[in-house]
Amino acid sequence: MSTTAQAHPNIALVKYWGKQDGTGNLPATPSLSITLDTLQTTTTVEAAQGSDRVYFDDKAADDPKILAFLAELRRLYDIPPLTVRTQNNFPAGAGLASSASGFAALTTAIDAECELGLSRGTLSALARMGSGSAARSIFGGFVALEGPAWEARQVLAPTEWPLTTIVVITSSEQKRIPSTTGMTLSKQTSPYFPAWVTSTRADFDLGLLLVARRDFDALAELAEQSCLTMHALMLSTRPPLLYWNTATMACIEAIREMGQAGLSVFFTIDAGPQVKAVCLPQAAEEVRSTLQQISGVEQVLTAGLGNGASICLS
Amino acid sequence: MSTTAQAHPNIALVKYWGKQDGTGNLPATPSLSITLDTLQTTTTVEAAQGSDRVYFDDKAADDPKILAFLAELRRLYDIPPLTVRTQNNFPAGAGLASSASGFAALTTAIDAECELGLSRGTLSALARMGSGSAARSIFGGFVALEGPAWEARQVLAPTEWPLTTIVVITSSEQKRIPSTTGMTLSKQTSPYFPAWVTSTRADFDLGLLLVARRDFDALAELAEQSCLTMHALMLSTRPPLLYWNTATMACIEAIREMGQAGLSVFFTIDAGPQVKAVCLPQAAEEVRSTLQQISGVEQVLTAGLGNGASICLS
Repeated sequence: MSTTAQAHPNIALVKYWGKQDGTGNLPATPSLSITLDTLQTTTTVEAAQGSDRVYFDDKAADDPKILAFLAELRRLYDIPPLTVRTQNNFPAGAGLASSASGFAALTTAIDAECELGLSRGTLSALARMGSGSAARSIFGGFVALEGPAWEARQVLAPTEWPLTTIVVITSSEQKRIPSTTGMTLSKQTSPYFPAWVTSTRADFDLGLLLVARRDFDALAELAEQSCLTMHALMLSTRPPLLYWNTATMACIEAIREMGQAGLSVFFTIDAGPQVKAVCLPQAAEEVRSTLQQISGVEQVLTAGLGNGASICLS
Repeated sequence: MSTTAQAHPNIALVKYWGKQDGTGNLPATPSLSITLDTLQTTTTVEAAQGSDRVYFDDKAADDPKILAFLAELRRLYDIPPLTVRTQNNFPAGAGLASSASGFAALTTAIDAECELGLSRGTLSALARMGSGSAARSIFGGFVALEGPAWEARQVLAPTEWPLTTIVVITSSEQKRIPSTTGMTLSKQTSPYFPAWVTSTRADFDLGLLLVARRDFDALAELAEQSCLTMHALMLSTRPPLLYWNTATMACIEAIREMGQAGLSVFFTIDAGPQVKAVCLPQAAEEVRSTLQQISGVEQVLTAGLGNGASICLS
């Protein structure tokens, strides 16, 4: 017997970067995201003999984060040794939130396979222990993650305010500094870290309000500010975390120009060189065709708002 | 009778951005710079009938900052109405420190023309009232500017540690947000401003030590960090100050690659899209030829370390 779950990456409009001290992988800041639809992780789990085995794309890859996550789950629940097979239909480890969709799918699959019967909120809190942003991929549409519980919750369903995201891949190489390492460095070395935590709380409160109002223009401004303030934190980390490349910058310029020309689009960028252009559906075709002509752009994907993690085979 | 003075722009290795409250145009942070040699401003002043007249490149341009500066000087000294003619051999208002060389040359010319007999330190403090970084262009070589007097001083003469700077012009357009406006916005709106002030004081102390030791590698690391921490402050300003363009980013990538390959070179960038690659003289030719091949690079200038402002005709 085996169980297969699917989950989608999400991208934060009010960004999360940095963890609290102590156990449980608690974020230092709240965050507000949208879950995508066409990008996805598919993960199958089944009971195994002996010890855990992890396969990425059918290749053995005993990822230490996944093994540590399984060990953590076993402190709470009765879970046998597992074989985990996982695959993404998009580049992993490159700033496209593959760890978010990955841990959301894995947690959901284990819950079903082991018949734990957990609530979505509990699944979210468990997924968070694997990757902070995975807490949000348990839910679809617009999703908020804040303390003190640090279980995500849905703010709007995907159909309530459909937005389109053009994902621009400017490099499919794995990033040199993974997010977890980068977050630790920022907290330890950036003079800006305390102010980042404080200012993000205010941005989060404003973000909730703007999403409730469906105010695209104000959300666009807030999301670009939150993105740049996070990258500013990264740049002030020592050694500096500079995740952008030349094509990243070209996309930022192009999206700002489209925005200034009146198109409903804004950019956001996570810990990697990829650019996400979030837009109203009627602007998507023009945004896509403009961005795919930029030198250095390798691939352009289009996504709507997706649902939360779900079981697709068991 | 007229007097002509020349001065060079300088580039800060430990950056200055932001002013103190109150009068006198006092910087919020200390700074450490090098004065260039081949780029220069040439300014001629002579007594005029009636009111002040300012010409840029022989075109009337009654710059409000220059007129306000002359009014300020007259509160301290007896200065007649003046005709000021000024020209740069490099693009102005584009992040190449034309206001630094400009106010240094102007202050020096007025001192001689009006026979004020001021010390270099006083000239530096006066030039600062026109433009914070102009205080440094009164001196040559390595120059420090710190409080409480906020008169610059020379740290090393140009010959004591000759470095070469490759100035890469990626756009000769005037920037949309001038530095003075940008500094005010950063102070008023960036959550990072207080931490910027504190961390720059520590960087300045370290910078003085590294220059005294002629430690190129450690100075390279510090200068890139100071540059990125300043641009991080700018990015966290609301609205964000994003002075880079695509070619800026391509130059950063190329310089980092050259540095990682063992070449003695680092980048620094001021409030504009131009990139300055500072290197040991033996690396200059390779740095120059690499950078001038980058798409979007309009012009590449080479400078050694220059002298302070001086009278060339009177």
